[in-house]
Amino acid sequence: MNAPDKFAQLLALTREPFPASRKIYVPGQVHPELRVPMREVALSNGESATLYDTSGPYTDPGADIDVRRGLGALRTPWIEARGDTEVYTGRAAQAVDDGTRREDRTDPSDPEVQRIAALRAQAAGLQRTPRRAKAGANHTGNVTQMHYARRGIITPEMEYIALRENSKREWMAEYLGDAERAQRLSGNPMGAQLPEFVTPEFVRDEVARGRAIIPANINHPEVEPMIIGRNFLVKINANIGNSAVTSSIEEEVEKLVWAIRWGADNVMDLSTGKNIHTTRDWIIRNSPVPIGTVPIYQALEKVGGVAEDLTWEIYRDTLIEQAEQGVDYFTIHAGVRLPFIPMTAKRRTGIVSRGGSILAKWCMSHHKENFLYTHFEDICEIMKAYDVSFSLGDGLRPGSGADANDEAQFAELRTLGELTKIAWKHDVQTMIEGPGHVPMHMIQANMEEQLKHCHEAPFYTLGPLTIDISPGYDHISSAIGAAMIGWFGTAMLCYVTPKEHLGLPDRNDVKQGIIAYKIAAHAADVAKGHPTSRARDEALSKARFEFRWHDQFNLSLDPDTAREFHDETLPKEVSKVAHFCSMCGPKFCSMKISQEVREFAAQQGIAESAALDQGMQTKSAEFREGGSELYIPIQKL
Amino acid sequence: MNAPDKFAQLLALTREPFPASRKIYVPGQVHPELRVPMREVALSNGESATLYDTSGPYTDPGADIDVRRGLGALRTPWIEARGDTEVYTGRAAQAVDDGTRREDRTDPSDPEVQRIAALRAQAAGLQRTPRRAKAGANHTGNVTQMHYARRGIITPEMEYIALRENSKREWMAEYLGDAERAQRLSGNPMGAQLPEFVTPEFVRDEVARGRAIIPANINHPEVEPMIIGRNFLVKINANIGNSAVTSSIEEEVEKLVWAIRWGADNVMDLSTGKNIHTTRDWIIRNSPVPIGTVPIYQALEKVGGVAEDLTWEIYRDTLIEQAEQGVDYFTIHAGVRLPFIPMTAKRRTGIVSRGGSILAKWCMSHHKENFLYTHFEDICEIMKAYDVSFSLGDGLRPGSGADANDEAQFAELRTLGELTKIAWKHDVQTMIEGPGHVPMHMIQANMEEQLKHCHEAPFYTLGPLTIDISPGYDHISSAIGAAMIGWFGTAMLCYVTPKEHLGLPDRNDVKQGIIAYKIAAHAADVAKGHPTSRARDEALSKARFEFRWHDQFNLSLDPDTAREFHDETLPKEVSKVAHFCSMCGPKFCSMKISQEVREFAAQQGIAESAALDQGMQTKSAEFREGGSELYIPIQKL
Repeated sequence: MNAPDKFAQLLALTREPFPASRKIYVPGQVHPELRVPMREVALSNGESATLYDTSGPYTDPGADIDVRRGLGALRTPWIEARGDTEVYTGRAAQAVDDGTRREDRTDPSDPEVQRIAALRAQAAGLQRTPRRAKAGANHTGNVTQMHYARRGIITPEMEYIALRENSKREWMAEYLGDAERAQRLSGNPMGAQLPEFVTPEFVRDEVARGRAIIPANINHPEVEPMIIGRNFLVKINANIGNSAVTSSIEEEVEKLVWAIRWGADNVMDLSTGKNIHTTRDWIIRNSPVPIGTVPIYQALEKVGGVAEDLTWEIYRDTLIEQAEQGVDYFTIHAGVRLPFIPMTAKRRTGIVSRGGSILAKWCMSHHKENFLYTHFEDICEIMKAYDVSFSLGDGLRPGSGADANDEAQFAELRTLGELTKIAWKHDVQTMIEGPGHVPMHMIQANMEEQLKHCHEAPFYTLGPLTIDISPGYDHISSAIGAAMIGWFGTAMLCYVTPKEHLGLPDRNDVKQGIIAYKIAAHAADVAKGHPTSRARDEALSKARFEFRWHDQFNLSLDPDTAREFHDETLPKEVSKVAHFCSMCGPKFCSMKISQEVREFAAQQGIAESAALDQGMQTKSAEFREGGSELYIPIQKL
Repeated sequence: MNAPDKFAQLLALTREPFPASRKIYVPGQVHPELRVPMREVALSNGESATLYDTSGPYTDPGADIDVRRGLGALRTPWIEARGDTEVYTGRAAQAVDDGTRREDRTDPSDPEVQRIAALRAQAAGLQRTPRRAKAGANHTGNVTQMHYARRGIITPEMEYIALRENSKREWMAEYLGDAERAQRLSGNPMGAQLPEFVTPEFVRDEVARGRAIIPANINHPEVEPMIIGRNFLVKINANIGNSAVTSSIEEEVEKLVWAIRWGADNVMDLSTGKNIHTTRDWIIRNSPVPIGTVPIYQALEKVGGVAEDLTWEIYRDTLIEQAEQGVDYFTIHAGVRLPFIPMTAKRRTGIVSRGGSILAKWCMSHHKENFLYTHFEDICEIMKAYDVSFSLGDGLRPGSGADANDEAQFAELRTLGELTKIAWKHDVQTMIEGPGHVPMHMIQANMEEQLKHCHEAPFYTLGPLTIDISPGYDHISSAIGAAMIGWFGTAMLCYVTPKEHLGLPDRNDVKQGIIAYKIAAHAADVAKGHPTSRARDEALSKARFEFRWHDQFNLSLDPDTAREFHDETLPKEVSKVAHFCSMCGPKFCSMKISQEVREFAAQQGIAESAALDQGMQTKSAEFREGGSELYIPIQKL
């Protein structure tokens, strides 16, 4: 099978819409041409629910998708309308971009060589002519969303995001309207300032302050804009990417489409093996979500894997190469400073960030300060010409609970705060990466230190894992930490899969990691009291109580698995309206009995109303007057 | 295949010891005859680690196990030595005990009828002659561990527990000895008072105060004593049990052995279908962990599933039946009081506890106070004659986030506090059940209210689930809540499996639920600063950093899965000593590079020591003197 056919086969698996769901598009008001995608779930009782949708055109049966052509460029008219960019002849492709090394196979009769050559040829067709900020324009070559925001401009991206964050509210009134409940469940925002309704102006203001970022390279016009900030819905990132040992380009593109289907808001391509450039072309051109990378990985491939041979020039060239391809944010480990490296020597697990360890090795061997730190302003100049956002890497994050919150970690964090100020001087959007492995009682200090030293720039954490003894289940031990730190204020949670510490995640691992992190992010939103997050829980719980099994499945994070688990013991369609499941069987279903209690109460004239309370209070009064010692006054809580 | 053969086949699967592990037995000092089981893991570097072991004799290759004969009665000599019990002719078995109903098959040529008859005959042979407290003895028919504790007696059970909780400390010195690290990671006990070393006297004192319970019915002499209390290791409970729709006796016994293999400290038999009595016989006689039940389930079966037909007499008879069999704790929903029921009418999901809904129905239909509440002292009289512990059920727990912390839930909780005082008046050991579905920001209030109203009796919670939209993954959404509430002070966490809300868990679901809850419990122990809990994390992290792959697997919660995941991409034995895995490949392994950094530093004369700090501080000083604006003082945190 040739490469495109393999793509087609793989992608056919993941294009079907979710059950009972259809893609709807909400138009803009400031910018009427906007079409903001959402997923509408039709319920069996005639109601519907509208959900945030990261899956892009893939789940729209009307969309004409061909991975060999890439997605439509929805942002191009907006970018062109701003009139501050120019297309230009980009950097010439080089053989070394794909990390070609001596050990590579080159025999033209080798089928693998033919396959890669075909993919490269396709990728060359996919690559768009690059665009960059015009130099000399009145805003000095700066096309970042932060730059516009600070000049008071509400971009289409900002309005798109406002609509997306609000979702459609009409269906939620049913669930959020109960005043007593709303008050009791109002949430604890832990310092976040969540607006009741997100306006385009609110988005602009948050971006201008640096409290939120919109990762959206002008060379990634396919992206459906999204925002990362403490005062918005908590987002999740999924890492994909091949390594030298395993995985192919096709698998990585398929993982991308699969990841966004299940809810990844962002995807990082962490490829470290061969064909890095070509893999990235395929991924970006087919991605409706922002793509992040760690450019040092590719730079290292270009110098044959010898960290000491890295130079600023090679790194700089790699930044431009990737900025032209359309990478939306770069993880840059500029905080791994020479004086901090000795602080890691007594650690249980030393340096566990790949990027951090590469740079530590470079610093030690040259006995020089990290060249990303010394060239930080040069990097800003590149970033602002394309609107690539910083994800300031935590190269010294703890790799075990034993190393959590130590001096190395926090020294680097303070440096990232310093660098944030420099980035903001250039209006470059910036978020801060965080750990890692942190026991529960030490998590809050991470958020507090980050807020204190990094000026409210969005925090983006990996987990954290709350224990070290769960290889094979680290998606769970880290979802615990992720939910907590998300509640405390982290804006984006980088997922951990069951394969963490053990191997490269496959398709199923990606899904397991994403669902665990959707749980963590949603738990954080609910705890913070996000104005819309609770509605979905209530709609599902109502369906559960009313034995609308299909609705319960369809409102869940993973309808396929919920249905499959139910069907293992009660596969027949008639069971989908049954007033029980196999867990308890018909006689023991508490929900069924609870409904009978309610009906019984209604028959007896003590209805679900004040009358019922009244009836019972009369009974209680009788009971009390009877002199029973057992009576406890019922207090309103 | 006949029933015993089926048992043998099933159990053969789960008897092999964990890799590189052997069962060791630690002797007592006060009671030298004690043999406290632990699991010793041999590491490839010659070290070893000793771990808490719930798996009972099943993982001891020297143990002669025959499920048709049951486990050895290790506690019988201790019970007999106390001289305060008598064996007696127990309650006569009745056909109704197995919930026989009209619809049952009775044709003697039916193979299913033959199979059940054989299992019943075997069970009759398994059943021990029951024992109860002697009436008229100087402690008035009371054989509870609390009763002994309050009279200053340190029982063998208490010393056994002290040894078990301490584990062997020798191997931990390597990991817990670093003073700087120990101070940084000291934990936040959230009010718990964890001793550095658990003495038998400490166990006695905690039981006497009611802050901990030792579930150990005198008719369950097979049990390896364990303790549930806030000042001990956090424990987990696994629910098993058939329902009317699915599952067989053999499957339930196999689930028991499987559950304790993976770390269940307690198991509840929640059977609601047919053959309840027989299933329980098989389970208890083969269980080295305490077994809990919800007696109302069996009582309801005895009245044909009609809640209104329940009577105190039928319930009382069921308590005695189960106490004679050896059930260690009863969930009793005595707090579902008549005046509280109307409080549930406006809930999103009404009453979701099976027991709670049964009793609510009874109360409503008779318009009478819950007979478990009015007969509470009668129940205490039964409990103390066998040392059955109370697990005061939360029949009004919230079944959705929307109903969390509402007046019904907390009214019941206050009643459970009142009942605790009554139970303690009888020296009956008592724990309190808790929710359920609770958003993260409302979890701490549950623990605070429980401590305030229930006099520090151990809290035993189901999750809580932090969101409602994760059917199929509720083990994860609830592990988040469980870890948090465990940290806050909950003594035992009742697991939730991926099948929650969807169907009866199978063998794999049981394992998934248990591992998720071992993670939650361990995360809580680490956060509380339990003196020994961190050692295992450090040992595993050290193995990870040193690329001792086998040790990393063997120290993990699930060695089989960790190894299997690793082997998916690097199956060869040579990879088990490789300094990388497929996640990053050899060139990008941060741990490998980090070790190189360490070696490089050593070669350059800046060793991992004060000298290294000194060398770097000199460099920093030079840098600062150079007038660099970039210099940030390195503070000790």
